[in-house]
Amino acid sequence: MQPATLTILGSGSALPTWQNSPSGQILTIGDKSFMIDCGEGIQLTMRQMGIKTARLYSIFISHLHGDHCFGLLGLLTTLDMMGRTQPMHIYAHADLEKLLRPMLKYHLQDMKYEVIFHAVHPRKREVIFSDHTVTVETIPLKHKVPCCGFLFYEHHRQIDPVTGVMSYPMHKRYAYCSDTMYKENNIPQLEGVDLLFHEATFTQQWESRCKLTMHSTTHQAATMAQKAKVGQLMIGHYSSREDDHNVFLEEAKEVFPNTILAVERQQYEF
Amino acid sequence: MQPATLTILGSGSALPTWQNSPSGQILTIGDKSFMIDCGEGIQLTMRQMGIKTARLYSIFISHLHGDHCFGLLGLLTTLDMMGRTQPMHIYAHADLEKLLRPMLKYHLQDMKYEVIFHAVHPRKREVIFSDHTVTVETIPLKHKVPCCGFLFYEHHRQIDPVTGVMSYPMHKRYAYCSDTMYKENNIPQLEGVDLLFHEATFTQQWESRCKLTMHSTTHQAATMAQKAKVGQLMIGHYSSREDDHNVFLEEAKEVFPNTILAVERQQYEF
Repeated sequence: MQPATLTILGSGSALPTWQNSPSGQILTIGDKSFMIDCGEGIQLTMRQMGIKTARLYSIFISHLHGDHCFGLLGLLTTLDMMGRTQPMHIYAHADLEKLLRPMLKYHLQDMKYEVIFHAVHPRKREVIFSDHTVTVETIPLKHKVPCCGFLFYEHHRQIDPVTGVMSYPMHKRYAYCSDTMYKENNIPQLEGVDLLFHEATFTQQWESRCKLTMHSTTHQAATMAQKAKVGQLMIGHYSSREDDHNVFLEEAKEVFPNTILAVERQQYEF
Repeated sequence: MQPATLTILGSGSALPTWQNSPSGQILTIGDKSFMIDCGEGIQLTMRQMGIKTARLYSIFISHLHGDHCFGLLGLLTTLDMMGRTQPMHIYAHADLEKLLRPMLKYHLQDMKYEVIFHAVHPRKREVIFSDHTVTVETIPLKHKVPCCGFLFYEHHRQIDPVTGVMSYPMHKRYAYCSDTMYKENNIPQLEGVDLLFHEATFTQQWESRCKLTMHSTTHQAATMAQKAKVGQLMIGHYSSREDDHNVFLEEAKEVFPNTILAVERQQYEF
């Protein structure tokens, strides 16, 4: 079995900084590569890193704040120029299609592939994609606008050599939770995942601002990881107020020691 | 008198590469800073370079291909988060307002500053902005979609100490020509400018592809510079087909020796 890999393309929050771009990740799990969120510049970072855009199977957008979706139009344009013919499936809030269709119609008049939007309902936990190796379900989050995370799990068909019985045991599981307040009732869904990405926009000193903007602090992200007994926690979506990411890391480790930082242009195996 | 400065934020063409982002420049002339084109990622590069977004006075968009305007929405969002209250004037083809208004309405519901669109008519040479130090006029270009360049010229009021007569002699002049085919009838307008940016998307070996896509070759850009007797030529908008930018430079210099390359994240005084 191949390890799953997560590539961090952007790990900043709403305001880009000298060190952080808006959100975007690529998860390679089972036999596919999925994009998770697509802030401005994500496709540029992919090209700079030499990641083949043709590898992208589909795209999952957590919510429609600009730092999570403003890079989509550029990416879709590049895919067309690169000669994509395979349809691109985008899973997002229904409003995204209303916003993007007129832009696609104007800017990509002779598009050579189809963009298929799938409306997700951020309040419900539901399976939105499943094939022979990977299943994706939504994780209802709590933010200023409708928002959901995504739980990816890998499964491979196994046939018992004696009985001939087929089963689909789960292998790697990855959960993406951004953007959200601390939301304890998600813990059962996150229980025991191999890697949990949980936003930690603010360090502890900004707790009141965190509540106001409906984000999480380092301690809150780490508490989710601890209570859900996950394998590893990755934090990110760093506020531009704190330059030194080690402050985020040290705070989170106080609650959940096996925490790592999301670092842009880094690839993580799990 | 202060020198004018030109900052190159993006100098690639439609397809981003490991070394080039889509088009974007900042021209500081007279007492103002203007943005010229705004491809995806331009605001990220500004933030990485520590350029204050608050300094931007207005924005000029040559045409509505994505590599010249997909960064606008993100930039306008950041300006709002940074607390801008001064209106932002955008000079572009009328369609830009139709495309961007619904996005601004959705993504920036409580915007604290006004965005004022000014429709430019790419086929006419006309003055579209003028104040006490700078005048901007359009340069009609020839491309696959309506497109115009911009000529910026600085002027300062002078009062003759003897006669008391006021005059407005011109100082620095900068011309931006991208994207365009070779268009000889623009030469009178470009005559003697201090710095001419002219696209040179293709090296000479791609001449037939150049004609098809309505761009210019290195020799064509340099011929414009030579015939218009400009002070210096800067080329850019490099095709992703040629990795080594020195090939562009050497070819252009064969025709017009005082040519330089547009290099991203570099600032040029003139």
